Amino acid sequence: MSKFLSQKYFTLEEYVPGEQPRDKKYIKLNTNESPYPPSPGVIEAINSDAVRDLRLYSDPESRLLKTTIAENYGVSFENVYVANGSDDILNFAFMAYGDKGVVYPAISYGFYSVFAKLNGITPEEIPLEKDFSIDIRKYFNKNKLICIANPNAPTGITLSLQEIRQILDTNPDNIVLIDEAYVDFGGESALPLIQEYNNLLVVQTFSKSRSMAGARLGFAFGNKEIIADLEKLKYSTNPYNINRLTQIAGVKAIEENSYYMDNCKEIIETREFTVSALKEMGFYVTNSKANFIFAKSDKISGESLYIKLKEKGILVRHFSKKEITDFNRITIGSKEEMESLVKAIGDILKQGEKSK
Amino acid sequence: MSKFLSQKYFTLEEYVPGEQPRDKKYIKLNTNESPYPPSPGVIEAINSDAVRDLRLYSDPESRLLKTTIAENYGVSFENVYVANGSDDILNFAFMAYGDKGVVYPAISYGFYSVFAKLNGITPEEIPLEKDFSIDIRKYFNKNKLICIANPNAPTGITLSLQEIRQILDTNPDNIVLIDEAYVDFGGESALPLIQEYNNLLVVQTFSKSRSMAGARLGFAFGNKEIIADLEKLKYSTNPYNINRLTQIAGVKAIEENSYYMDNCKEIIETREFTVSALKEMGFYVTNSKANFIFAKSDKISGESLYIKLKEKGILVRHFSKKEITDFNRITIGSKEEMESLVKAIGDILKQGEKSK
Repeated sequence: MSKFLSQKYFTLEEYVPGEQPRDKKYIKLNTNESPYPPSPGVIEAINSDAVRDLRLYSDPESRLLKTTIAENYGVSFENVYVANGSDDILNFAFMAYGDKGVVYPAISYGFYSVFAKLNGITPEEIPLEKDFSIDIRKYFNKNKLICIANPNAPTGITLSLQEIRQILDTNPDNIVLIDEAYVDFGGESALPLIQEYNNLLVVQTFSKSRSMAGARLGFAFGNKEIIADLEKLKYSTNPYNINRLTQIAGVKAIEENSYYMDNCKEIIETREFTVSALKEMGFYVTNSKANFIFAKSDKISGESLYIKLKEKGILVRHFSKKEITDFNRITIGSKEEMESLVKAIGDILKQGEKSK
Repeated sequence: MSKFLSQKYFTLEEYVPGEQPRDKKYIKLNTNESPYPPSPGVIEAINSDAVRDLRLYSDPESRLLKTTIAENYGVSFENVYVANGSDDILNFAFMAYGDKGVVYPAISYGFYSVFAKLNGITPEEIPLEKDFSIDIRKYFNKNKLICIANPNAPTGITLSLQEIRQILDTNPDNIVLIDEAYVDFGGESALPLIQEYNNLLVVQTFSKSRSMAGARLGFAFGNKEIIADLEKLKYSTNPYNINRLTQIAGVKAIEENSYYMDNCKEIIETREFTVSALKEMGFYVTNSKANFIFAKSDKISGESLYIKLKEKGILVRHFSKKEITDFNRITIGSKEEMESLVKAIGDILKQGEKSK
């Protein structure tokens, strides 16, 4: 830290991304990436002509991309926002709507607390219930920005549209942000509600179901006034924030939507296979509707399992937070990768019994 | 604007990017892009394998890219920062170092005033001298963040390293940010001074001399504490802010540095050709060391020339700001494009004389 840094950032604790070790090749089940590549049209469109055109600025309005998204989701151009990853959108939402404070579940996406601190907002972190579910009544009449990941992370547990309606109804004077990064793996999107509620912002991403974590593309839906707020912040920060190749990739990925939705079906099947296999080995597994599962065993601590899997070349994500330290969050990879995981866990548990 | 937006952004006026009209094909000399494509290695590296890997997150540390930049510029890894365009870096610098205020020339990059407003910082805008030069004495002992584009925009006029030293010497308790977006076209970089001054931040970009405006890649040099400050803000905002393909492109572009430096030589020659031609037609042209020129004629107003060139399919940039409204900023395109420009201006002036 330099002696020049603004005092307001002295105690800021930055977000810690999932580890990306370079010591050997891992089966990477720690950052919720897709096991499948982008669709053929994306691979074809990012060709040498597109690279030559990098000399020109990207379209700051992302006109083609926003139009394509709007058509696919059956909304108007004015209801669509795009940004450099959904983190970008979350940060703008905290900037724009956090003045009166922010509320989110105490166990959720770890970045919410960082955005709060970054923007000088006092957060109210509401504990989950014992079964990791969200009691929506605790989010009624908050008069603060509300941020809920649905499905929630790292639990994968969902709220119904009816429950989200109740939160929206009881919070008419503040924005309710529904973070749907994982919605394509079995959740129910709140998108249809944007016409009805002027306080709803629905945030999605190309990083998970659309196999483009490395392209950095997030999108959001809301009533046109909300989208105009976010555009104003974007044009005051980084108008060209989405590069040309990512815009091209985004358009093609939406055009080839069925490829991705088929992949989602595969991932859901692989998830259910993995859940069954872990339950057979005695694990407790939450009812995840995401591309990850959240599991613990009473035969081995969360941290030990994480370490032993890493030794066997499999990366999963372990959090040190007290309430969830018994668990690991395991991304759903390909069927083969998950079979390797199941075998590895079986071996680790057997090893543990022998050494008793 | 929604009723939910934070009051602090009510009067925020966003940056207005150069126009990107879609009505017909223009000779585009309005946004300081390069007329040359990225180098062959960049075009080769962004191939189908790279696109397939988009399913994975980009390296948040940008390790290979930062190492490559560090080697090319003869500094340490810890002295290098990279971000999603240099605008991203400027915004972080305003956040980190603007608490006591910010000073910049009243005629300069239009985004400085937006960043100030966005971050709630009171700016001090120092008028240029009558010849558009910067009187460095007006920047002594400011005790505020100082932001100077060198070469300045839209004038193209430079400060010497000796002058920058004097500003650094008289401002030991605040950051001096030298924005070198255009330095490769004839300016003198302040980079060698980062070892000597702990209050210097040098910002550059791949958008101009490196033909990648559409890839969004900015970089900066400073003492390692300053770089650590900026990293902290990045990890608290958008850790994966540089996408995979842009990281690959950046590495190759640095490896093929001589291609770009040869292009810069071409652009400088074309600039000098254009300046001579305009002077022959009676224009006043500033002494630009950038990839644009700044020119006015007493035969035609700045706005009329802009409009008549647009009618002829040539886009240049006109600013309505009073002090510079007689001028146009004209990007240096290819030799052929500038010959077309010179001819078009000649025709417009002749037309003007006939109609008298």
